[in-house]
Amino acid sequence: MRHDLYPTRRRANSTYQARRDPVVWSTAAPPGFVSSEEIETFDRDGVLVLDNLFTDQEIERAVAELDRLRDQADRLEPETVVREPHSDAIRSIFRVHRQSRIFAEMARNPRVRQLVEHILDDEVYVMQSRVNVKPAFDGACFDWHSDFETWHAEDGMPRMRAVSLSVFLSENSYLNGPTMFVPRSHRTFVACPGETPDDNYKTSLRRQEIGVPGNEAISELAEKGGLIAPSGRPGTAVLFDCNLLHASAMNMTPWPRSNVFFVFNAVCNELERPFDGGKPRPEFLAERVPGGGRRYKAA
Amino acid sequence: MRHDLYPTRRRANSTYQARRDPVVWSTAAPPGFVSSEEIETFDRDGVLVLDNLFTDQEIERAVAELDRLRDQADRLEPETVVREPHSDAIRSIFRVHRQSRIFAEMARNPRVRQLVEHILDDEVYVMQSRVNVKPAFDGACFDWHSDFETWHAEDGMPRMRAVSLSVFLSENSYLNGPTMFVPRSHRTFVACPGETPDDNYKTSLRRQEIGVPGNEAISELAEKGGLIAPSGRPGTAVLFDCNLLHASAMNMTPWPRSNVFFVFNAVCNELERPFDGGKPRPEFLAERVPGGGRRYKAA
Repeated sequence: MRHDLYPTRRRANSTYQARRDPVVWSTAAPPGFVSSEEIETFDRDGVLVLDNLFTDQEIERAVAELDRLRDQADRLEPETVVREPHSDAIRSIFRVHRQSRIFAEMARNPRVRQLVEHILDDEVYVMQSRVNVKPAFDGACFDWHSDFETWHAEDGMPRMRAVSLSVFLSENSYLNGPTMFVPRSHRTFVACPGETPDDNYKTSLRRQEIGVPGNEAISELAEKGGLIAPSGRPGTAVLFDCNLLHASAMNMTPWPRSNVFFVFNAVCNELERPFDGGKPRPEFLAERVPGGGRRYKAA
Repeated sequence: MRHDLYPTRRRANSTYQARRDPVVWSTAAPPGFVSSEEIETFDRDGVLVLDNLFTDQEIERAVAELDRLRDQADRLEPETVVREPHSDAIRSIFRVHRQSRIFAEMARNPRVRQLVEHILDDEVYVMQSRVNVKPAFDGACFDWHSDFETWHAEDGMPRMRAVSLSVFLSENSYLNGPTMFVPRSHRTFVACPGETPDDNYKTSLRRQEIGVPGNEAISELAEKGGLIAPSGRPGTAVLFDCNLLHASAMNMTPWPRSNVFFVFNAVCNELERPFDGGKPRPEFLAERVPGGGRRYKAA
């Protein structure tokens, strides 16, 4: 039987265990455009805000590209377009690095790759990408969750050796439903109650109910680490660990809020069979190593 | 037929008109504990944050009193206790100045009375009081609205000559669903679409649907005035004009958010018959001048 470092689901309550993986895997000096202090901040808090990864021109092109994708959403792979829970407004478009040359280039940006490869100390690949568009006035919330909990249970990610990069494509203020993070929560794995339903992703992308920690767990971690919600102008980038607790509230302001997310997984951390025993989610949510994961199998 | 300065309801869309009343009615010097600049800010923006109205001891007593009222909610007048839309958690308790000696004293606080009487240039009385408790994790939002629109249509308030004072009874941060205001929106009256249903208040206190301006109106006013969400420690007080657009988002944080509100109306602005033609709302929502409004009738 396969050993499971992070058992979750099929339990009555949230339970805790300490993280069993490093956060920053490399011990070498970081690339020149980030400081050792910034890497230490990421190691300690699980989240780091950077404003020097992209040029203004790159961001302008990405913003225009998002508008183009939304206007032509009927030409995209249908399952990659997720609507709001209470309306037909677009909430997310997945797999943008495979459906858009502009977003493919962002995902290959040399600074991004150098930074992520430094943290994970391995070659990386894009396991998931998406744009999130939180409409003005009634953009719905995302519940508290650790991405790793879902990726481990439903996609078979074995270790905590992946990071997400969120890049603002509009102003993210403290009022328009920004992502809230619990700093330092990445050091604790919160196993979640409940059993994964079949094809859970078909509803969980609109409103997540399984893979949500109990309120006591969130309270305890937030009492220790506090809460932060990075804000900033378009182009601001937030790098966060795969196991960091986060959520975002609804957007009631008259201004939509949009971000593009790239999830980078270490090639050596290739997805296996899902740890919840279910069937794997589709590739648009959890891409395997391109070329069949030879590197993982050889390791 | 009675002349209506601010017609609203029974229309297909939001329409605008300029305010026909002053904001600051007195032209005399303000009381010593507020500056002329602060009064000018209130006149211009419709909202003013003050942190010197109450002593720490007064606030500690009010916080303890809120806990007591919640614990003994079954002893309160039943219709004054409003629950969350999706749970039995207490969302608001109305008429606290008539059900609690501590809150009655807060409403009579000499600084508060001097300030409000200066702005309205008249004797004032408490037309409505309430505590709002936004529970942790799933405290629901309050939709965009101007209080005056409702008070005019449903309670018969003839003129814009009333102000609200919100006093924080817990930390209000930018993340736990603080009240958001559109500065300068008090200068415009936005007439709202729809017809008032019978006993509208029985549902509108949980989730408001009538008396909500159209999104275009909110966008236009917010483009001009921006958005602010005052934050601060317990005891921070926010004075805002009766016609200022405001809303508050849900609270997803692990920390509840509570405030006490007092609405002060000028005695000369005594409530009349509701302007929407319906029957008046109960006294716990819209109290008439104590003693029968003799001053109004004599004016």
